[in-house]
Amino acid sequence: MTERRTITEFRVRYAETDQMGVVYHSHYLVWCEMGRTDYIRALGKTYAQLEREGVGLAVADASIRYHAPARYDDRIRVETTLESVRSRAITFDYLISNADTGDRLVSARTTLVSIDGSGRPVALPSGTRELLARSPT
Amino acid sequence: MTERRTITEFRVRYAETDQMGVVYHSHYLVWCEMGRTDYIRALGKTYAQLEREGVGLAVADASIRYHAPARYDDRIRVETTLESVRSRAITFDYLISNADTGDRLVSARTTLVSIDGSGRPVALPSGTRELLARSPT
Amino acid sequence: MTERRTITEFRVRYAETDQMGVVYHSHYLVWCEMGRTDYIRALGKTYAQLEREGVGLAVADASIRYHAPARYDDRIRVETTLESVRSRAITFDYLISNADTGDRLVSARTTLVSIDGSGRPVALPSGTRELLARSPT
Amino acid sequence: MTERRTITEFRVRYAETDQMGVVYHSHYLVWCEMGRTDYIRALGKTYAQLEREGVGLAVADASIRYHAPARYDDRIRVETTLESVRSRAITFDYLISNADTGDRLVSARTTLVSIDGSGRPVALPSGTRELLARSPT
Repeated sequence: MTERRTITEFRVRYAETDQMGVVYHSHYLVWCEMGRTDYIRALGKTYAQLEREGVGLAVADASIRYHAPARYDDRIRVETTLESVRSRAITFDYLISNADTGDRLVSARTTLVSIDGSGRPVALPSGTRELLARSPT
Repeated sequence: MTERRTITEFRVRYAETDQMGVVYHSHYLVWCEMGRTDYIRALGKTYAQLEREGVGLAVADASIRYHAPARYDDRIRVETTLESVRSRAITFDYLISNADTGDRLVSARTTLVSIDGSGRPVALPSGTRELLARSPT
Repeated sequence: MTERRTITEFRVRYAETDQMGVVYHSHYLVWCEMGRTDYIRALGKTYAQLEREGVGLAVADASIRYHAPARYDDRIRVETTLESVRSRAITFDYLISNADTGDRLVSARTTLVSIDGSGRPVALPSGTRELLARSPT
Repeated sequence: MTERRTITEFRVRYAETDQMGVVYHSHYLVWCEMGRTDYIRALGKTYAQLEREGVGLAVADASIRYHAPARYDDRIRVETTLESVRSRAITFDYLISNADTGDRLVSARTTLVSIDGSGRPVALPSGTRELLARSPT
């Protein structure tokens, strides 16, 4: 089976640090969102396009384990894996590490639900399900 | 003439600090926006209501002088003054200080322009001009 | 047994919304941190003081369930409960709701570990354990 | 004279949008900071290193003009120019544009002052002045 995984890399911004001298813990959720944006792009369509077509994906559940802190200017790597697709929900797993040392920093999982324009949960449109069945390239 | 000024107070959040041990400089713009939200509320209508009626106010220009740093858990005071209202633009001035010591931290000015639903600049609706002519209470 | 719970209230900032028209999901973690800051303050000492005395508390684990979205200018209530204190870790639970309607928005749990100045996990100092054994007032 | 300018490119994050459907105005200051981080790196030393050597640069003044909005997933280009170096202050200019269309989005200027470990303004260390006299490569 093909691995359903993409890699996103960037550097830690000064604005993302806090007075403990490390990245403030909420920012890793933003990095996860960057990871799944890149995952969907690698399927051949951007999340921005999906949204313009009326497909909304709202985070319904997130869990995050913090193993070691990221620091200012560190090169970060986010590995995003599509864990499962169900009729109304998609689950992604993330492994965030230091791209230079390989140190594991954070592991996380988010479940997103499909919503319509008024925010009501709906079944994933068939086009989106087909898109998510592809392998990222 | 009545003074067109309101006061907003709150505490610095941990998330707003950076590794220098002080508030990261972009957050003061968020605090200015809290100040003008409260200013407009004190006129008798919320900015949220204005937006639902199709009135958009987009920041066109901002200038900020940083006098002294705010720190985690400091009680902050934002004094917001309506400096001028023109046909398409509104200018607010802000004085941000430590609410306990009175120390001046930041002075800032933002100019907002009236935009329609597609983001195009338009004349301020007459209802909004009348609202802004009131004194905050 | 006395209830170990505090209430924090504030309004949603414009900066916290995203283009879906609701609060971006990472900000709830910031609100949780505001909740536990107020919880510790209600015990008689601020987290800022604890940190100056060399006590660091780093988030090791977070889980968040999103029930309904918060919107701009909504009045938010965070109920913070101290769930457990162990030798090296503290767990807080949070219930975030709309303060006007009572609607439940988010429930979350964070576990914090005690770290020293270099970020190494250490046993919670006895003074901090005694502080956390108090009931908030 | 060699042009003292660097280019930084990245995509707009979902977290950076607000309910107006565009990038919230404070984030451009974060992008400016990314621009000057890259400018200093191109001189041969990172700002992270400078900070570890005790050199602090605090923003003393910022001005920003918003010409057109950036949107989610847009590719952004920040052109950073070192405008001047004085004994205690450094001024950078920024031109932020859409990397695909070339549309000008924001122009900004920040002045940074040299501070010591306790946040007091000091003359720029001679090593830093020499570094800033180089051309970015």
